[in-house]
Amino acid sequence: MVDVETFIPEAKAEIEAALGDETAIIALSGGVDSSTAAALAYEAVGDQLVPVYVDTGLMRKGETEGIRETFSHMDSLRIVEAQDRFLDALAGVTDPEEKRHAIGEQFIREFETVAKDVDASMLVQGTIYPDRIESEGTIKSHHNVGGLPDVVDFDGIVEPMRDLYKDEVREVARELGLDSVVSERMPFPGPGLAVRVLGEVTEEKLRVAREATAVVEDELEEADPWQAFAAVLGKATGVKGDNRVHGWIVAVRSVESRDGMTARAQALDWETLQRIQSRITGQLDSVSRVVYDVTHKPPATIEYE
Amino acid sequence: MVDVETFIPEAKAEIEAALGDETAIIALSGGVDSSTAAALAYEAVGDQLVPVYVDTGLMRKGETEGIRETFSHMDSLRIVEAQDRFLDALAGVTDPEEKRHAIGEQFIREFETVAKDVDASMLVQGTIYPDRIESEGTIKSHHNVGGLPDVVDFDGIVEPMRDLYKDEVREVARELGLDSVVSERMPFPGPGLAVRVLGEVTEEKLRVAREATAVVEDELEEADPWQAFAAVLGKATGVKGDNRVHGWIVAVRSVESRDGMTARAQALDWETLQRIQSRITGQLDSVSRVVYDVTHKPPATIEYE
Repeated sequence: MVDVETFIPEAKAEIEAALGDETAIIALSGGVDSSTAAALAYEAVGDQLVPVYVDTGLMRKGETEGIRETFSHMDSLRIVEAQDRFLDALAGVTDPEEKRHAIGEQFIREFETVAKDVDASMLVQGTIYPDRIESEGTIKSHHNVGGLPDVVDFDGIVEPMRDLYKDEVREVARELGLDSVVSERMPFPGPGLAVRVLGEVTEEKLRVAREATAVVEDELEEADPWQAFAAVLGKATGVKGDNRVHGWIVAVRSVESRDGMTARAQALDWETLQRIQSRITGQLDSVSRVVYDVTHKPPATIEYE
Repeated sequence: MVDVETFIPEAKAEIEAALGDETAIIALSGGVDSSTAAALAYEAVGDQLVPVYVDTGLMRKGETEGIRETFSHMDSLRIVEAQDRFLDALAGVTDPEEKRHAIGEQFIREFETVAKDVDASMLVQGTIYPDRIESEGTIKSHHNVGGLPDVVDFDGIVEPMRDLYKDEVREVARELGLDSVVSERMPFPGPGLAVRVLGEVTEEKLRVAREATAVVEDELEEADPWQAFAAVLGKATGVKGDNRVHGWIVAVRSVESRDGMTARAQALDWETLQRIQSRITGQLDSVSRVVYDVTHKPPATIEYE
């Protein structure tokens, strides 16, 4: 375990030295890694750091408001409202790789616009150790908005947390006094809810994934999983009232893990599963079926795409 | 509860009277209802009854062999090998209603060919009480190859079990000495595995649904559900060996019910679920994820389409 009291001043010194007088930019995803890296860098260089949060419309419930509050002390914070542009870019795209690609492209475009606008020559990233390991293999692509440095031209990249594991990041976050909403928040993939709806991304599917995930997070707070969420798999028949309906199948995923590289499906009890399914099907008219993912990683991934 | 010892001779007398000297035909689905109706009618009129089993390629593992054995004493049994014709009829069809329609049409075509060939003027059906109730509403369509009498021209239809519930049918089956493989077999829908693979029906998906269902039936024999099976929902990412794969999501469904009109998802224990998921993902290379359906009927149906 890293010694936080040593790590923080060292990391800040590293960031200061790397930036000099230059302006740096960092992409905030809403996840703990980028939030912590931003908080760390902001403590080091203040408004020389421009944190950019792109609201892709693929975010969790309350995510944008949370970011706005957590980082309200940063004058340089930029929130880009890009929901419509992302939905347009994703219209008609069903292949998972193409979806991720479309999101990555659009993200780079949004990010580049801000980078040029603030004349940023440096990039700060919240990369952590498992990201580096996984991107060496073929397991994971684009989960952390990879590709940014390859496309946008920066003089240098700073990755102050490159040797940390997730639990160490959380400790740094707590030490920096980040809202527990951020420091304890579950991991969230770069492409957001897009990898939690199979096939084409539509506003309706996103709404179902978002609302159902809020129920899952609420019900599983005590079970304290590494990561828990809801995904939208497709449609199946159901019965609501006296009518046959064709409703969404929502998958609930809850896993235990130390670092995300491997994970165990969490053994939830039947009452909890029933409470979750009845809240989701009760609250969302268009959902008629809830399934629980019982697969570990491997052979499944934590996310669906 | 119906008195089986009175019911059987009365039903046989009804069938004999209805048929007179005419030839009747009955469609065998592999399910307990049609099998019992066929056994009952065959006892009454012998080879005047022609049981027709259409192998649609949408059947459970070992279903065709089971039919062949169980009904080997019936000289009039016809087994129609129609797998390719059904796959052709289903190619490119993704909408659930259109799938059911395509299957119904092809089934009628196959059935009509035999009916003409043996000059059948009467139809025997294994309709039971809940079928009649459900087809009055809009809940269920074509699950029992409905529509046959509307299209093929018969002088009369005999439904000897029209007032029975499923458990009464099983009792009749046992009394008639039907193989327990048939009398205790779980309900199976008319359109077969086609309603257990979402989207287009392909040989690969059918193979996955068939093999995974065999695992589920084997593992849940002791749990003794009303109905248990596996369905193929779509593809999601997974990890097999060192590779990222895009594998099938298999849903496991196991429900308790008295009559199929309502049903409760069965509270399986975690060890059982883990045994099922590990056998399915271990045995089938193309499957990387197993989910367990925790929804009752309503709001879900038992089947997926």
